[in-house]
Amino acid sequence: MTKFIINDQIVDQDKAFVYVSDLALLRAYGIFDFFRTDGLQPVFFEDHIDRFFRSANIMRLKCPVDKENLKSLILDLISQNKIENSGVRLVLTGGESPDGYTIGNPKLIVSNEPIKPLPEEHFSKGIKLISHEYLRDIPEVKTINYLMGIYNMPKIKANGAVDQLYHWKGKISELTRSNFFVVDENNKIITAANRILKGVNRKYVLQIAKQKFEVEERDIYMEELVQAKEAFITGTTKMIMPVHQIDDIVIGNGKPGSVTKDLQITFSEFIAQHLQSHR
Amino acid sequence: MTKFIINDQIVDQDKAFVYVSDLALLRAYGIFDFFRTDGLQPVFFEDHIDRFFRSANIMRLKCPVDKENLKSLILDLISQNKIENSGVRLVLTGGESPDGYTIGNPKLIVSNEPIKPLPEEHFSKGIKLISHEYLRDIPEVKTINYLMGIYNMPKIKANGAVDQLYHWKGKISELTRSNFFVVDENNKIITAANRILKGVNRKYVLQIAKQKFEVEERDIYMEELVQAKEAFITGTTKMIMPVHQIDDIVIGNGKPGSVTKDLQITFSEFIAQHLQSHR
Repeated sequence: MTKFIINDQIVDQDKAFVYVSDLALLRAYGIFDFFRTDGLQPVFFEDHIDRFFRSANIMRLKCPVDKENLKSLILDLISQNKIENSGVRLVLTGGESPDGYTIGNPKLIVSNEPIKPLPEEHFSKGIKLISHEYLRDIPEVKTINYLMGIYNMPKIKANGAVDQLYHWKGKISELTRSNFFVVDENNKIITAANRILKGVNRKYVLQIAKQKFEVEERDIYMEELVQAKEAFITGTTKMIMPVHQIDDIVIGNGKPGSVTKDLQITFSEFIAQHLQSHR
Repeated sequence: MTKFIINDQIVDQDKAFVYVSDLALLRAYGIFDFFRTDGLQPVFFEDHIDRFFRSANIMRLKCPVDKENLKSLILDLISQNKIENSGVRLVLTGGESPDGYTIGNPKLIVSNEPIKPLPEEHFSKGIKLISHEYLRDIPEVKTINYLMGIYNMPKIKANGAVDQLYHWKGKISELTRSNFFVVDENNKIITAANRILKGVNRKYVLQIAKQKFEVEERDIYMEELVQAKEAFITGTTKMIMPVHQIDDIVIGNGKPGSVTKDLQITFSEFIAQHLQSHR
């Protein structure tokens, strides 16, 4: 039976619950993080744990276990569950609130479940997005709020798209669960610098991209999409995924471009090396 | 011991929990509603139940019990708990999700707890607000998302305010948990028409206001605040509460105005009559 972490304990599924006075349930006040395992080895483990604690700190939520204890609890959970190539989700809630509004003692929940692989053609042919005017609440924090993402799913599917590209005041920020990049006519790689969740994969993709290409972190405007030669997204399960269309705008020739394909290969090699060196 | 409703059952507190795979916890996907009781009699019961089902419907959440059964379950809960002048909160979650993103079978939770009375001077002297640029997600739905409200509490308190007034693209919408009204130099009462949660108290205040004053539901712009003679908010526990200052803008002479005070009295009488006729 799959095990979970609740606070400082590894528990069975029937103990993995939250009382109804918790602010996460009453007021959506909570943060999370998510990483995958390669076999049973966590990918970019330190980065995700660090970001989890940064998110918690900004939201004034005190994690009931410290960073080192959390890491060993999670490694223990993974080795007990023995689910190869799984996802590990950490949630920290606002805690049981005395008045339904004041932060209580945050509850830590860690789950570890199989990941359904994404369709292979999303990687090889790319995906379509629709645009949506929206700014994530407190965008630099990985809050639990994905209301807009789930609410718009029927509209996304009806348009033959797989996700939405958020923009606000003319500036492109990110997708529901991924960072967004364009490649301009000079093969310069551009991604939003502000009002986004700084993804762990975004960080490493920028790092490897800089070795071969010019890279710019700055505001990207909606108008730039028509001139973009390539576009792609990054994320924990998406790695690097090409984007071939946004609304009615076909990106480049509608096929994954050479810079994106180059980065896909280089990033896979980078992750393999990274895992090797952390074994 | 206080009882709760979970789905179609009245249960003890130790059974009032949600499993960690519920979308409300993982993705903040859920709706709620809240009403108060006068003694043990629900106030504007039908309106709140109707709005709860409207919110659920827009969010594609199917309540596990129908409207009539929910009403009799709630009346039963109130009579078992016997908490006079209490609050009743209905939450409908996204349900346990197979993949952490797809809507499952929604879970109904109803809690019934004492309400802490608001400070008397909030009603007699009014309150200060700060403004904040924000649009609630899916504003016509009472979602559980109050991240921005709770996150900004230290800033609100540091400014000597009690809540924040949201505005977006220059237009004033609402507070975190209340509707907002201004009174202009001709004693016309104006409140936002769009992109707001249409409060139950807002509806009845508009109804009684129309009998004495000119009333307009339309976009209100931030620039109009400097000319407003009076301002007030409405809500389930706030009823009608005067606003004397927003950021650095003192409203009128900084004291509750005659229209607001008139409406406070008329609305109290209206509620008393309404309760009498529904007894």
